[in-house]
Amino acid sequence: MEKFEITILGCGCAVPTVLHNPASQIVNIREKLAMIDCGEGTQMQMRLNKVGFQKLRNIFISHLHGDHCFGLIGIISSMGLLGRVTPLHIYGPQNLGELLKMQLRLFCEGMEYTVEFHPVPTTEYQLIYEDRSMEVYTLPLKHRIPCCGYLFKEKPTLPHIRREMIDFYNIPNVYINNIKNGADWVMDDGTVISNDRLTTPPSPTRSYAYCSDTAFKPDLQQYLDGVDLLYHEATFGKEREERAKITYHSTAEQAAIMAQSCHAKQLLIGHYSAHYTDVAPLLEEAKAIFPNTIAAHEGMKIKL
Amino acid sequence: MEKFEITILGCGCAVPTVLHNPASQIVNIREKLAMIDCGEGTQMQMRLNKVGFQKLRNIFISHLHGDHCFGLIGIISSMGLLGRVTPLHIYGPQNLGELLKMQLRLFCEGMEYTVEFHPVPTTEYQLIYEDRSMEVYTLPLKHRIPCCGYLFKEKPTLPHIRREMIDFYNIPNVYINNIKNGADWVMDDGTVISNDRLTTPPSPTRSYAYCSDTAFKPDLQQYLDGVDLLYHEATFGKEREERAKITYHSTAEQAAIMAQSCHAKQLLIGHYSAHYTDVAPLLEEAKAIFPNTIAAHEGMKIKL
Repeated sequence: MEKFEITILGCGCAVPTVLHNPASQIVNIREKLAMIDCGEGTQMQMRLNKVGFQKLRNIFISHLHGDHCFGLIGIISSMGLLGRVTPLHIYGPQNLGELLKMQLRLFCEGMEYTVEFHPVPTTEYQLIYEDRSMEVYTLPLKHRIPCCGYLFKEKPTLPHIRREMIDFYNIPNVYINNIKNGADWVMDDGTVISNDRLTTPPSPTRSYAYCSDTAFKPDLQQYLDGVDLLYHEATFGKEREERAKITYHSTAEQAAIMAQSCHAKQLLIGHYSAHYTDVAPLLEEAKAIFPNTIAAHEGMKIKL
Repeated sequence: MEKFEITILGCGCAVPTVLHNPASQIVNIREKLAMIDCGEGTQMQMRLNKVGFQKLRNIFISHLHGDHCFGLIGIISSMGLLGRVTPLHIYGPQNLGELLKMQLRLFCEGMEYTVEFHPVPTTEYQLIYEDRSMEVYTLPLKHRIPCCGYLFKEKPTLPHIRREMIDFYNIPNVYINNIKNGADWVMDDGTVISNDRLTTPPSPTRSYAYCSDTAFKPDLQQYLDGVDLLYHEATFGKEREERAKITYHSTAEQAAIMAQSCHAKQLLIGHYSAHYTDVAPLLEEAKAIFPNTIAAHEGMKIKL
């Protein structure tokens, strides 16, 4: 199966602590790397986790709270110093563009690559990025300031070759790409071996949804049905539900209710408040409702 | 002796590595904390090194390269989230003010404390800060962009009390402050014990100079004569002297020549290029000229 892997660089909240770095994740789909959010210190976390700077093509920022974007200018600047020439694309709410413009002017004069900013809508579900491997959609979240999540959908891959049939009909290797792309095989005597005898269907496409920061927002479910992995913030436990409401965050229980209602295959919780030096109670709270829950930690890799 | 202590939070250069954090130091003079430079991740380094956020009064920024200031907005923001009410004063080159203004607008709305920016001259030696314990002067450095170092001078303390004389004359404790401030003691029979018999002179005042980033600049010597501790950047070794010249940095040898010419009591080198995974050769190079040299590392504390 082709690669679809999430790496957690940071899953803390608001103020960095000795336990957690602020928000940042890497989504690797077929060796194309995207970043979601970029709190302070993300570039150091990339180094610690051996994530190549130059393989990063797109950065998606959820909102303009510092724990989700203060590391951006550092990464942009370091990539320039390291000799990047490939353009970098940054997606985020409108006013991130204004900040980037000033920072690029003050800190990145003479840099050999370009940074292209793409404003994204934070109040609707919209396709904002597409390449041969994936589509990325915004997810409208509910926070104190404009904020969106991101849904990564893998595009279908080609069918799998049935190696034993290829061998049986003595089909040369040079012809395999054609078969993957749907061609039949014609034998020397004119017999046609139809494509469906030579291949099995492609692997089902996978998807990953990032929902942070947000108050509990039941209508998100409509965009997330059957998602393979749902990252949903769980800033607080149930005992701080009132605090979650006031600050437009979610509890671990609410994250689990969302996972359940959208039939997610797995739930990943994070964005823990600094109150929780041990996140086990948050994990237990979510598991009570949605058993297939895991708790994010820095350096964690999850293969879909 | 009253406290005068430097803590190294970061002594790397340009791009953060797994070995070094970007530039930042804490100067603690009599429990008043000042920060010099604030590269990305400085707030995490403060936590790791148990430096209290709320004790920090002033931040001095040398220049607008990212490795010296990308961490500033993170610290400002975290202090707000942690409930700071005391104003924070930031000193630095003029255009830092423009950046701070936008960042404060975007990220710090409703914060309960004020951030006051004080532009400093980068081309002259000038007193820019003074309180009961210290004076801070700018040091004009020579870099690719406007850049200044900072000289911290302790103000004289009060004379030391000669405990044995106090006991001998049975002087009550409530009177000791007066004696420290110069009063004589009058005995019951009218005999005057002059102050110089009751005290010894105050400890000599101490000073600390921070010179980073800079090309070798011999005329700095005039401001630094007899400095107790000189931090001088040593980005490169002698074998990269040409590279140092082009990039307006110094070699370890040049740092040592400066220490020697200004009769510094001790030299502290840092701001190592990422080329040097082992800084021992830089230290050896400096020691060959100025033996009392030490090499900075993250977490290092130096008492003056």
